[in-house]
Amino acid sequence: MLIFVEYKWNASYMKIEHINGLVAAPFTPMKPDGSLNLELIPTYYQILKSAGVVGAFVCGSTGEGPSLTFKEKMLMIKAWADCAKKGDDFKIIPLLGGTCISECVELAQYAAAAGVHGVSITAPYYFKIGSVDTLAEICRTVAGSIPSTPFYYYHIPVLTGVDFQMISLLERVDDIPNFAGIKYTHEDFMDFLSCLNYKDNTYDMLWGRDENLLSALVLGAKGGVGSTYNYAAPLYHDLITLYNQGKPEAAQKKQQQSIDMIRLLGKYGGIATGKAYMKLMGLDCGEFRLPVKNMSAAQFESFKRDVDHLTSKAFVRQFLLHIVLLNSCIAYGKQQPCLCAGKYKRFTALVN
Amino acid sequence: MLIFVEYKWNASYMKIEHINGLVAAPFTPMKPDGSLNLELIPTYYQILKSAGVVGAFVCGSTGEGPSLTFKEKMLMIKAWADCAKKGDDFKIIPLLGGTCISECVELAQYAAAAGVHGVSITAPYYFKIGSVDTLAEICRTVAGSIPSTPFYYYHIPVLTGVDFQMISLLERVDDIPNFAGIKYTHEDFMDFLSCLNYKDNTYDMLWGRDENLLSALVLGAKGGVGSTYNYAAPLYHDLITLYNQGKPEAAQKKQQQSIDMIRLLGKYGGIATGKAYMKLMGLDCGEFRLPVKNMSAAQFESFKRDVDHLTSKAFVRQFLLHIVLLNSCIAYGKQQPCLCAGKYKRFTALVN
Amino acid sequence: MLIFVEYKWNASYMKIEHINGLVAAPFTPMKPDGSLNLELIPTYYQILKSAGVVGAFVCGSTGEGPSLTFKEKMLMIKAWADCAKKGDDFKIIPLLGGTCISECVELAQYAAAAGVHGVSITAPYYFKIGSVDTLAEICRTVAGSIPSTPFYYYHIPVLTGVDFQMISLLERVDDIPNFAGIKYTHEDFMDFLSCLNYKDNTYDMLWGRDENLLSALVLGAKGGVGSTYNYAAPLYHDLITLYNQGKPEAAQKKQQQSIDMIRLLGKYGGIATGKAYMKLMGLDCGEFRLPVKNMSAAQFESFKRDVDHLTSKAFVRQFLLHIVLLNSCIAYGKQQPCLCAGKYKRFTALVN
Amino acid sequence: MLIFVEYKWNASYMKIEHINGLVAAPFTPMKPDGSLNLELIPTYYQILKSAGVVGAFVCGSTGEGPSLTFKEKMLMIKAWADCAKKGDDFKIIPLLGGTCISECVELAQYAAAAGVHGVSITAPYYFKIGSVDTLAEICRTVAGSIPSTPFYYYHIPVLTGVDFQMISLLERVDDIPNFAGIKYTHEDFMDFLSCLNYKDNTYDMLWGRDENLLSALVLGAKGGVGSTYNYAAPLYHDLITLYNQGKPEAAQKKQQQSIDMIRLLGKYGGIATGKAYMKLMGLDCGEFRLPVKNMSAAQFESFKRDVDHLTSKAFVRQFLLHIVLLNSCIAYGKQQPCLCAGKYKRFTALVN
Repeated sequence: MLIFVEYKWNASYMKIEHINGLVAAPFTPMKPDGSLNLELIPTYYQILKSAGVVGAFVCGSTGEGPSLTFKEKMLMIKAWADCAKKGDDFKIIPLLGGTCISECVELAQYAAAAGVHGVSITAPYYFKIGSVDTLAEICRTVAGSIPSTPFYYYHIPVLTGVDFQMISLLERVDDIPNFAGIKYTHEDFMDFLSCLNYKDNTYDMLWGRDENLLSALVLGAKGGVGSTYNYAAPLYHDLITLYNQGKPEAAQKKQQQSIDMIRLLGKYGGIATGKAYMKLMGLDCGEFRLPVKNMSAAQFESFKRDVDHLTSKAFVRQFLLHIVLLNSCIAYGKQQPCLCAGKYKRFTALVN
Repeated sequence: MLIFVEYKWNASYMKIEHINGLVAAPFTPMKPDGSLNLELIPTYYQILKSAGVVGAFVCGSTGEGPSLTFKEKMLMIKAWADCAKKGDDFKIIPLLGGTCISECVELAQYAAAAGVHGVSITAPYYFKIGSVDTLAEICRTVAGSIPSTPFYYYHIPVLTGVDFQMISLLERVDDIPNFAGIKYTHEDFMDFLSCLNYKDNTYDMLWGRDENLLSALVLGAKGGVGSTYNYAAPLYHDLITLYNQGKPEAAQKKQQQSIDMIRLLGKYGGIATGKAYMKLMGLDCGEFRLPVKNMSAAQFESFKRDVDHLTSKAFVRQFLLHIVLLNSCIAYGKQQPCLCAGKYKRFTALVN
Repeated sequence: MLIFVEYKWNASYMKIEHINGLVAAPFTPMKPDGSLNLELIPTYYQILKSAGVVGAFVCGSTGEGPSLTFKEKMLMIKAWADCAKKGDDFKIIPLLGGTCISECVELAQYAAAAGVHGVSITAPYYFKIGSVDTLAEICRTVAGSIPSTPFYYYHIPVLTGVDFQMISLLERVDDIPNFAGIKYTHEDFMDFLSCLNYKDNTYDMLWGRDENLLSALVLGAKGGVGSTYNYAAPLYHDLITLYNQGKPEAAQKKQQQSIDMIRLLGKYGGIATGKAYMKLMGLDCGEFRLPVKNMSAAQFESFKRDVDHLTSKAFVRQFLLHIVLLNSCIAYGKQQPCLCAGKYKRFTALVN
Repeated sequence: MLIFVEYKWNASYMKIEHINGLVAAPFTPMKPDGSLNLELIPTYYQILKSAGVVGAFVCGSTGEGPSLTFKEKMLMIKAWADCAKKGDDFKIIPLLGGTCISECVELAQYAAAAGVHGVSITAPYYFKIGSVDTLAEICRTVAGSIPSTPFYYYHIPVLTGVDFQMISLLERVDDIPNFAGIKYTHEDFMDFLSCLNYKDNTYDMLWGRDENLLSALVLGAKGGVGSTYNYAAPLYHDLITLYNQGKPEAAQKKQQQSIDMIRLLGKYGGIATGKAYMKLMGLDCGEFRLPVKNMSAAQFESFKRDVDHLTSKAFVRQFLLHIVLLNSCIAYGKQQPCLCAGKYKRFTALVN
C-alpha cells in the first residue's frame, strides 16, 4: 500500500546524469475517432531524433496526460520506451499523474520496468497541498517506489495551483537518492537560479518555458523541456549556439521568432494550436480531447496564413528542414510520404 | 470512443425527482495500511439512514475521490449501491472524476449498472476550460453515456478553479434529458437563486455549503449535500425545522453551532478533521491519504478538548443521538460496540 | 503625526445605535466637463429620503471616492452633511480612503467637524496587509482621531484584495470605543453570521451585497448599504416587508427582480451602469471618471430596451414611484421637472 | 478638468534618450515621529551619485508613494529635483499616483515645473481597468498634461492587480509623443522582449526586478529601476560588467548574491527590510508607515547576523565601499559621521 512503500535506497547515492539539450513534450497522436494512434510514434521518434532533440517528456501537459486513461498512459509509455530502447541515448520521461498517488506509484513501476530513463509527477491539483513538507513526502513516496530510476518533480503552478519555492523543495529531498531534478515551468528566475546553485549544481534543472529559454541559459540552464521543440527545435538550437558564441543580439532575434510563433497559441485558443503546427508540417496527430478546444477548419486556414506571415526566412528554413526530415523518416519507414509537393514549394518560395 | 458517444435520449424528457433533505458526502473508510475498509460501509449506511440522511454523495471531495484509484472508486460505488439497493429510497450519487472524460464515461456506465440513483462530475481541473459551451459539451458527453440515470454537475470552484455562472450552464443543457441539476458548492447566492428560478424550478439545486445552509433555505433550497451531515445531521434537521416553523432567530443559533463546529476544520488543518469528528463519535474511518495532512495524536487530544468546549447542550444532544444510533447499528450488525461507557458518560455529563 | 495619534477614549464605551434600513451609496454627480455637480445633491438627498432610504454612504465605491481628489472629497462630504444637518435622522457616512492613512485621519477630522454620523475606511489596497493585527492598528489610528464619531470598517475584498475573516478583526477592536461595525461587501455568510453573533450583537453589521440581501436578512441583518438602493429602494423595502411577514416565496421573487436588474450591470460594463439607471429615471449624475468605462450612446439605447424587458409590473411601479418622487422634489425645489411626459407614459403603459 | 486636457503635442515627435544604468527607487526618509526627514535627501543623493546610480524613481513603491499625502509627495519631488538640478545628468522620475487621475495630472504638472526628468504612473488599483484601451487613455490623459516631459508607465501587476500584456499597451500609445517607456516590474520576459523589439527598440524598457536583472540583460535591457540599488549598486555594476565581458558564470554568482540578500526581505516581512539595510549601512531612513510592518528590535539583531552570514567577501566589499562613500558624503556635508569604527572593523575583518 502506498503509505508503506519500503524505501530500498541504494547504499550510495545515485549519480544522475544531467540532461544537456532539448527534450520535446510530444503530443499524443490520436485517430479521428479519438483513440490513440500508436503507430505514429516510431515516426515521431525518428523526427525528434533527427532534429537533434535528446528526449521525450511523454504524457505531459502537451501530451494530454491528464486526459488519458490509466491504460492509455501505459500504452504511450510502452510505445515510446520501445523506440528508445534500441541502445541510443534518447531519454524517455513520462509524467505519471495526477491526483492519485497510488496510481502514480503503480505507473512508475510499470514505466521503470518498460525501461524509461526517468519518471515525473506534478503536485496533486485537486486538494491543495498545505506545506512543502507534504510535497516532499509525496515525492519520497513515488520516487521510493522506483529507487533505481531518476525522478523529476514537474513544477507548473499555472496548471496545478501549487506554487512553493522549489529551493524549499530541494532542501527537503536530499534523502531521496533518485531525486534527479525539476522540470521548471514557471517564471520565477530567482528561485530557478537558487535551485541551479544549490549544492554545487547537484540537481538537474530543466527549463520549461520555451519563450524564455534565453533568460534561463544566461543563468546556467543546460536543458529544456517544451512543446515547441516538437516542431521548431532547429530554431532553438540556433538560439543556443548563438548564445554560446557570445552573440546575444542574434540570440534575441531567435527568441523573438519563438515568441511570435508562441503568440499564435494565444491567438488560436491555446495548447491545441500545437497540434495544428504539427499538422502543418505533415505529422497529423489528430485533435486534442476535451476539455481542450480545437481550432475550427476556418481557424486553421487563418492560422496557416499567420504562420506564413510570421516566418522569417530563418524560420522557414527550420520548417523546411523539419519537413525534409519527416519525409525521410516516412520514406525509411516505408510509409507513404504525407507531404504534397505543393507545401514544400510554398515554403521553398518563401526562402528564396 | 469518447468523442462518438451515441446519444440515446429518451423520446420524452425524463421527469427527475428533486431531492428533499440532506445528502451526506461520506468519508472513504480506510484501514491503517491505507487500503479501503469496505466492511465499514453497511454500518456507515445504517447510521446515515437512522440519522434521517436521504442519500450519499460517494467518492466526492470528502470521500477523497481524486485520491482513489479507478478500481477503488468502482469498489466504493458497488459497496454503497449494494446497501441502498434493497428497496428503500436512499440515493447514491457517486462523483465520477476527474480530468479524464473517458474514465468518467466508463465509470458512469459501471455506476449506472450498479444501480446508483445518479452520477456527478466536476469540471476538469488541470486544463482550464475556456468557455461554458465546452463545459456543457463535457456534461453532454458523460450524461449521454448513461441516458436513463440522473446527471448532476458538481460546481466547486475553490477546488477546480472553474468558475462560470451556473445559470449560463443551465441555459446550455436543456437538450440533455437526464441533466438533473447541480451540486452547488460556492457562495454565489445570486447565481444560485437564478438557477433555482430557471424554467420554473426545473433543475434540482443541491446546496453544498453546510455553514451557509440557512441562507440557501430562504432562497428556496430543498436539498443539501455536505460533509458535516455525516456527523451532525440532527443539528441541521433542527435548523431546517426551525426555519420552516418561522423561527429564524432559533435557526440562526443552530447555524452558528454548525459554524463553530466547522471552524475547527480550519483550526486543525482542513478536510481531514472530518474523519477526526467521525472517530470521536465511534466510527473510525482511518486517515486521509496524501496530499491531505492528518492530525497528529497531540492535535487530536487538543481537538477533543475543543469539541467539548464548543458543545452547547443542544449540540451535545446531537452527538449523543448519533452515538446511540451508532451503537444500535453495531449491535444489530453483531459487531462489537466500539464506544466505551466513558465517552457516553462524558457527553451525558455535559447535557445534564 | 499619524503614528502618534493620542487616543482620547471616552471614559465609558460609546453606545452606538445600529442602523435599521437601507443606506444608499450615492453616485457622485458630475457635470459634462467632469467637475462635481454639487448643486444636484439637495435634490438627490430629498429623493433618497422620500424613498425611505435612511442614510448615504458618500464617496464609496459607487461614489468613486478613489477617483476624487482630496478637495473634492471634502466638498462632497460637506454638501451631504449640510443636507442632513437640519435635525432629521438621515445618516451620512463618508468613505475616507484610501492608501494613505494620514489623509484618512485628516479627512476623518474634517468630516466629524462637518457633522457626519460616522466615517469609514477600507483596507489599504496597494501594499497588502500582512496580518489582521495591522488592520486593527489602522482602524485604531483612524478611529482614534475622531473618538466621538462612529467608525465603520468597509470590507470589500473584491476591490481591496484584503480578505481577512472579519470575526478576527472584531476580536481585535474591542478596545476601540467608537468602532461601530462593518460594511460587509463580501459573500462569506459564515463570517458574517459570526460577526452578527459576536458579543451578543454588539457590532453594527451592514450588508453590502444588494443581490443577496434576503440571504443576509435570514441571518439577522437589519441594515444594508448598496448602490441599487439609489434607484430601487422600494423594491427592497417590499422584499424586507415580505420576508418579515413570513412570505419567503414572494420575497424570493423580489430578490430575483433585483438580480435581473443587477445583471444588466454586468452586461453593460459594470459600475457605470448605475449612473445610466439614474439617468433613465431623470436624475442625470453625468459619467463615471476614468478608469471606469461609460456606456456609449448606442449601448444606452440598448440598455433602455433591456430595462423595459426586465420590468415586471411590480418593478415598474417602483420606477414610477421613484419618478414621481423625483418630480415632486424638483417641483418643490423650483427646478424645471426634467422628465418628459413621454417617459412617464411609457412606464404607465407597462403597468396598466 | 481632467476630461478635457488639451493635448499640445509637439509638432515632431520627441526624441527621448534611453536610460543606461541603474536607477534607485529611494526610500522616503522619515523622522521618529513619522514625518518626512527631507534634510537627509541631499546626502542620500550624493550616496547614490557616488555609487554610480544614474537616477532616482521617487515616491515609488519603495518610497511609499501610496502612503504619502499629496503635499508630502510634492515636498519629496521638490527635494530630489533640487538636488539634481545643478547641471549633472542624474534623472529624477517621480511616481505620481494612484487611483485619482486628476491628482496625477496636478502632480505631473507640479513635477514638470520642478524640473524632473520624467514622470510615471501605475494603473489605478481600486477599480479594475476593463481593457488596455482604457489604460492607454489614462496614459494619454496624464502624459498629455505635460507634453514636454518623458512619461513612463509603471507596470507592477503584483501590487496593482492590472496585468495586461505591455506589448498591447505600446501598440496603443504611438500617438503619445512623450510616452518614453515602461518601468517593467513583472516576470513576463516574453512580453518584455517583445516590448524591447517593438518598432526597433523605440521605447525605453526599464527592468524592475533586481533579482532577475541578468535574465533581462541577456534580452537587451540597458536600464533598471530597483530598491536594492539603494544599498547594493556596486554588486549590480559588477554583475553588468561581468555579463558584458562575456563571463556569465561570474555574473550568475553576483546574481545569486543579490538573491541571497533579497531573500532576507522575505524572511523579515517584506519591503520594510530595505530600510533596515539602509540603517545597517548608516543612512537611517526611519520606519515604514502603515500598512507596512516594521521589524522589531529583536528582529533587527537577527537580521544583522543574517547579513553577516550572507556576505561573501565580494559582497562585503560592496558594503564597505558603500560605507566609505557614505562617510565621505557626510564628511563633505559637515555632518557627524554616523558609522562607528566598530562596524567598519567588523566588515573589514570579514574581507581579510
